[in-house]
Amino acid sequence: MHICRFTRHGDSTPRLGLLEGGTVRDVTAATEVLAPQRWPLPPGDQLIAGLPAVRARIAAIAAGAETISRAQVRLLSPVANPGKFVCGAGNWKHHGAPFGMMGFMGKAASAAAGEGDGLQIAWPDRVTLHEPELAIIIGTTCRNVAEADALDHVAGYCCGLDSTLQREHEDYAFCKSFDSYGTLGPALVTADEVPDPSALSYRFWVNDELRGERSFADLTGSPAQMIAFASSAMTLHPGDVVMSGAADVGPLRVGDVMRIAIDTLGEMRVPVVLSPHARAG
Amino acid sequence: MHICRFTRHGDSTPRLGLLEGGTVRDVTAATEVLAPQRWPLPPGDQLIAGLPAVRARIAAIAAGAETISRAQVRLLSPVANPGKFVCGAGNWKHHGAPFGMMGFMGKAASAAAGEGDGLQIAWPDRVTLHEPELAIIIGTTCRNVAEADALDHVAGYCCGLDSTLQREHEDYAFCKSFDSYGTLGPALVTADEVPDPSALSYRFWVNDELRGERSFADLTGSPAQMIAFASSAMTLHPGDVVMSGAADVGPLRVGDVMRIAIDTLGEMRVPVVLSPHARAG
Repeated sequence: MHICRFTRHGDSTPRLGLLEGGTVRDVTAATEVLAPQRWPLPPGDQLIAGLPAVRARIAAIAAGAETISRAQVRLLSPVANPGKFVCGAGNWKHHGAPFGMMGFMGKAASAAAGEGDGLQIAWPDRVTLHEPELAIIIGTTCRNVAEADALDHVAGYCCGLDSTLQREHEDYAFCKSFDSYGTLGPALVTADEVPDPSALSYRFWVNDELRGERSFADLTGSPAQMIAFASSAMTLHPGDVVMSGAADVGPLRVGDVMRIAIDTLGEMRVPVVLSPHARAG
Repeated sequence: MHICRFTRHGDSTPRLGLLEGGTVRDVTAATEVLAPQRWPLPPGDQLIAGLPAVRARIAAIAAGAETISRAQVRLLSPVANPGKFVCGAGNWKHHGAPFGMMGFMGKAASAAAGEGDGLQIAWPDRVTLHEPELAIIIGTTCRNVAEADALDHVAGYCCGLDSTLQREHEDYAFCKSFDSYGTLGPALVTADEVPDPSALSYRFWVNDELRGERSFADLTGSPAQMIAFASSAMTLHPGDVVMSGAADVGPLRVGDVMRIAIDTLGEMRVPVVLSPHARAG
């Protein structure tokens, strides 16, 4: 199941969709299975935590749901409220670092965005770098999980763009935390459709020029190993995002268009735009 | 107003309290002013976002509320669901770095903890460092806010312990993101009681030995400057935590007890314990 969030023209209310090729089925009504929540709210994204019930309801209503052309909607991050990003670093075999040596970097959860947000450049006097990656969406709370059990805690997968301000004196976590620098999409593809995430591969373009084409079999730490390692330090909650780490890093300019495709997971197209909050260059 | 969260013996349900010296008034009933929320939930901690209404209700019910000795409760993080931590780096005048040169580090929101959680060491084969700091709790959503307006977006302040695994090859954001490595408390002291956060000072002890005593007037980037700078990159939401950055850094061992006191904000005492999830050393 390819589950997306989107808005329709002239309406800023986020809706839930089923992405089927060039068509989105509006299955927002399925979110009615999610109970109203009162303080104190539990950690984790409510929809991801309740995904089994939401999926069952989607399946029941999909056939009768209104369909819209994908071109007519604005795709948002498929996870409304990720609790955190855990970003792999130096995590490709050709980087030569044994898994675990570099650990992970961080990224503020508020950086989460969808294709329809674009990549919003707030510091145009500085270089922003593209980082095409696999995004792993945690489905169930886990801590200290064994590698063999790690993928049981995955809700699904999507394409990820872990954009990063080119570092000068700042820490990486800051450089990765600009609003819209964590693009996820086009949809969360549920884990049952991805028996082995290491068998996936990506292609990445800037302005239709191919900038990278790799198999996730060449990650030093596999998705299962990343989850196991991260969970030795911190609790992972539903909706948390583990990013594979990037190999194809390069500069972006306002006006560029990034495009990433991962087999099974689909493709997203993210324009690089000037942020409405951009500082004077 | 000194607003805390706590649990009572034999009950894991988080409660809302008013901390008055050695006494906690149970004002959990004030959270009834917070409406049930349905998907998609807005960003930000619900109680902090609704603080004006919660405060009014607390004021109305406090006199009749049950009082409990502070020694009888377990204090939790005063912010239930911080959206992110933004951690100052190299931010003391004696560090010699001009403000902005180092930017900020990150810390996973799941690291938030209270005095009653202790500092839980999950990697006992590695050194964990103490970092006593001022924690600034954002009250209202802001982006690109001017320094002169920044403190208008603060809900309150508390003591913060930004504990950090001593770095080897890992990124700082990972080292700071272990569960319980972001201790906040003892209570959120509302901003009306702190006209100038730079006028506050702290004392910090390990096992009753004084390890640091400083005025936050000696920060390179003041609380207002930190908020202004961070918000040039990212949106700050209610419940987000801006940490001042540390000057008194040193090693901790299981069995140690950290204690931090900031005038007006109170004091908390955090034992260093072995995590139930500790890996074999």
